[in-house]
Amino acid sequence: MPLTANDPNRKSWLNVPKDSDFPIQNIPFGVFITKDDVVTIGTRIGDFAIDLGALQQLNYFEGIELTDDMFMQDTLNDFISDGKKTWRLVRNRIAELFDTKNTTLKDNEAHREVVIFNIEDVEMQLPVLIGDYTDFYSSKEHATNVGKMFRDPENALLPNWLHLPVGYHGRSSTIVPSGIPVHRPMGQTLPNGETQPVFGPSKLVDFELEMAFITTDANVMGESIPVEEAEEHIFGLVLFNDWSARDIQKWEYVPLGPFLAKNFASSMSPWIVTLDALEPFRAQGPEQNPKPLEYLQQEGKHAYDINLQVAIEPEDGIETVISNSNFKYMYWSMAQQLAHHTINGCRVNSGDLMGSGTISGPTEDSFGSMLELTWGGKNPITLSDGTERKFINDGDCVIMRGYCQNDEVRIGFGEVSSKLLPPFTKKQN
Amino acid sequence: MPLTANDPNRKSWLNVPKDSDFPIQNIPFGVFITKDDVVTIGTRIGDFAIDLGALQQLNYFEGIELTDDMFMQDTLNDFISDGKKTWRLVRNRIAELFDTKNTTLKDNEAHREVVIFNIEDVEMQLPVLIGDYTDFYSSKEHATNVGKMFRDPENALLPNWLHLPVGYHGRSSTIVPSGIPVHRPMGQTLPNGETQPVFGPSKLVDFELEMAFITTDANVMGESIPVEEAEEHIFGLVLFNDWSARDIQKWEYVPLGPFLAKNFASSMSPWIVTLDALEPFRAQGPEQNPKPLEYLQQEGKHAYDINLQVAIEPEDGIETVISNSNFKYMYWSMAQQLAHHTINGCRVNSGDLMGSGTISGPTEDSFGSMLELTWGGKNPITLSDGTERKFINDGDCVIMRGYCQNDEVRIGFGEVSSKLLPPFTKKQN
Repeated sequence: MPLTANDPNRKSWLNVPKDSDFPIQNIPFGVFITKDDVVTIGTRIGDFAIDLGALQQLNYFEGIELTDDMFMQDTLNDFISDGKKTWRLVRNRIAELFDTKNTTLKDNEAHREVVIFNIEDVEMQLPVLIGDYTDFYSSKEHATNVGKMFRDPENALLPNWLHLPVGYHGRSSTIVPSGIPVHRPMGQTLPNGETQPVFGPSKLVDFELEMAFITTDANVMGESIPVEEAEEHIFGLVLFNDWSARDIQKWEYVPLGPFLAKNFASSMSPWIVTLDALEPFRAQGPEQNPKPLEYLQQEGKHAYDINLQVAIEPEDGIETVISNSNFKYMYWSMAQQLAHHTINGCRVNSGDLMGSGTISGPTEDSFGSMLELTWGGKNPITLSDGTERKFINDGDCVIMRGYCQNDEVRIGFGEVSSKLLPPFTKKQN
Repeated sequence: MPLTANDPNRKSWLNVPKDSDFPIQNIPFGVFITKDDVVTIGTRIGDFAIDLGALQQLNYFEGIELTDDMFMQDTLNDFISDGKKTWRLVRNRIAELFDTKNTTLKDNEAHREVVIFNIEDVEMQLPVLIGDYTDFYSSKEHATNVGKMFRDPENALLPNWLHLPVGYHGRSSTIVPSGIPVHRPMGQTLPNGETQPVFGPSKLVDFELEMAFITTDANVMGESIPVEEAEEHIFGLVLFNDWSARDIQKWEYVPLGPFLAKNFASSMSPWIVTLDALEPFRAQGPEQNPKPLEYLQQEGKHAYDINLQVAIEPEDGIETVISNSNFKYMYWSMAQQLAHHTINGCRVNSGDLMGSGTISGPTEDSFGSMLELTWGGKNPITLSDGTERKFINDGDCVIMRGYCQNDEVRIGFGEVSSKLLPPFTKKQN
């Protein structure tokens, strides 16, 4: 199945602004609600949202084997279940339909009216029903920074870290799409130097700059996914802000890992950019030394060169970019993560989400959390309005962006943006 | 809404064997497939499975507000969403229908034939679609045993343990109903005294004797559930075997908690016994010292006196009971667990499952895992066939049972039984 959707020379008859994340070579997948309250699966070109449910009803997917209501659903899970061959057929067909050379839809005003919306006129939803959410911890720089701060600066990485992609289970029920505000969590913490915990709002709310991939159903229980096949079962990626409450985390996390410090909210960008669209941006990952065990060994390029950025926008203020990182810094590849996750026979379903863990680069301005950027609050960041931040303030909006760029094309993710609100009260809501 | 379903004097016109876990006072909920491949929601009295979908179609639930297909579904999630008032109306109605005093259904042979099945003629399914699975660690005896073995015998409990119900997220995708065999997981371990990990089958596969409760959707994101309201949002309980691979766990679990050591499988009993049915068996939990923070304080009886038993049945052998424990030993109540889980605003959905953690009693014969029963393998258990066990062997079936008993009634859970198979191979399956 050739990936003609990726052809860098293709132009769309829809206007695509310069430096848009969504040229006709991207064709991401998402779910949106129109002004008429119709929920549909869609894609995006430039600043237009395209209703794939309407396209299907108008027979534009003729010849591709799809169930009748494939795109008239409120999640992508069934489509993802259909597998990579179908994803490619659909992306290729969409590319052809919106190609300048193709005037079928372009010249049909009645069809265009029910298919194409301004992006401002739709409301993006969570694109998948996430059965299980796993979070890895695969940035060596991040794990080293955390180890230096909380454990032993001389032995920052724990003994297992270089041998396996450390990961743990997160909570699916509180993953929300970009734009949904998040409340500062209440919880138990142990003040420094005290022996009795106290109850109150978290004082150290942080973001974690992550990317996450969405899987298809790839194995039966008991079966593992070989590392060389793993990418076949990855549908695509999103930007992911794994909100964290550092003071709650510090008190609760031994011995079973973070729990309430994490599960109050995670925010994701609404468009899933397919692994296929990212194909031109494969990169060599960091050298792995020691060589991992055989089931984790892979040849070739399995990292992806995706520029990442974090900004803070204070209430009624303007944003300040506080970090520039890159997804290619990840020590463990997504394929290695998925192979490891299933080596014990753990079943993976369509719509499962796997986070990278905080993505920190090698330099201080490329760290992926306030914890690291301010080194535990010791070196506050000054925003462009002159105010300082050790962690995130109520009213701050945290914005993460990501895009790939070469000489021919730019493929981006848009953004995941969410505002931190004060603790929840009944009255407020 | 009176709980007339619990009337201990009620008798059913269906035969209930002596010492059955399922007298007419139980009325648990489950999902089964009939010989004709019909999937339905059902209940159980004695050794009869009762098709609630068929009962609903025949109008036996008239007067109770239910959607038309409420019981013609393959999960209980929608029914659980309807809330405690509806659960009670339905349980009361079922009790009335099968009461010796009521001959409506009893005398209608045509109806009886489509409603009532022998339990051997149906195949039990997972009763709920589990969105998120959380596992607590709420037995003080278990946490102390593990702390003594792996950390400091003098300070076995970590500092947070007495202040909050420690918990972590598990994996929903590998929770299976009783009867489904489980493969010994492959994985990475660090042999004693070595510095390089090796790959192979886990050598230390263990069970964990747990109970788990199923919640309804109780809060919006950001909102917490007060401890005094928490029981209103608990639908019922099941027996739960949280399979564990101790050697994988030891190597992988720092710093983010157990992952592949747990997520290869968890097994649950198929009938959800309602919290209402367990009402006569409320008990006083252990004294909590130090007094927990206010959001975890509760008055009255919030433990449940449920006798628990674990047996091992070797391949082609007879079973040996190896542990007798009780759910009332739990230090933290289910209400405290749910209040803590949501104190940060974490959303809880209908069908979410929350495990107690391993339930160990105060005596050596009441421990809830092989790890504790054999003290890390040092004191093997001799089965009735003369063979020894340090952990679970391939071919062993692990059977857990649970029941409540007073002078008037016995309410039980049946069993969760699952066999450990050798590692998965493609050929085998």
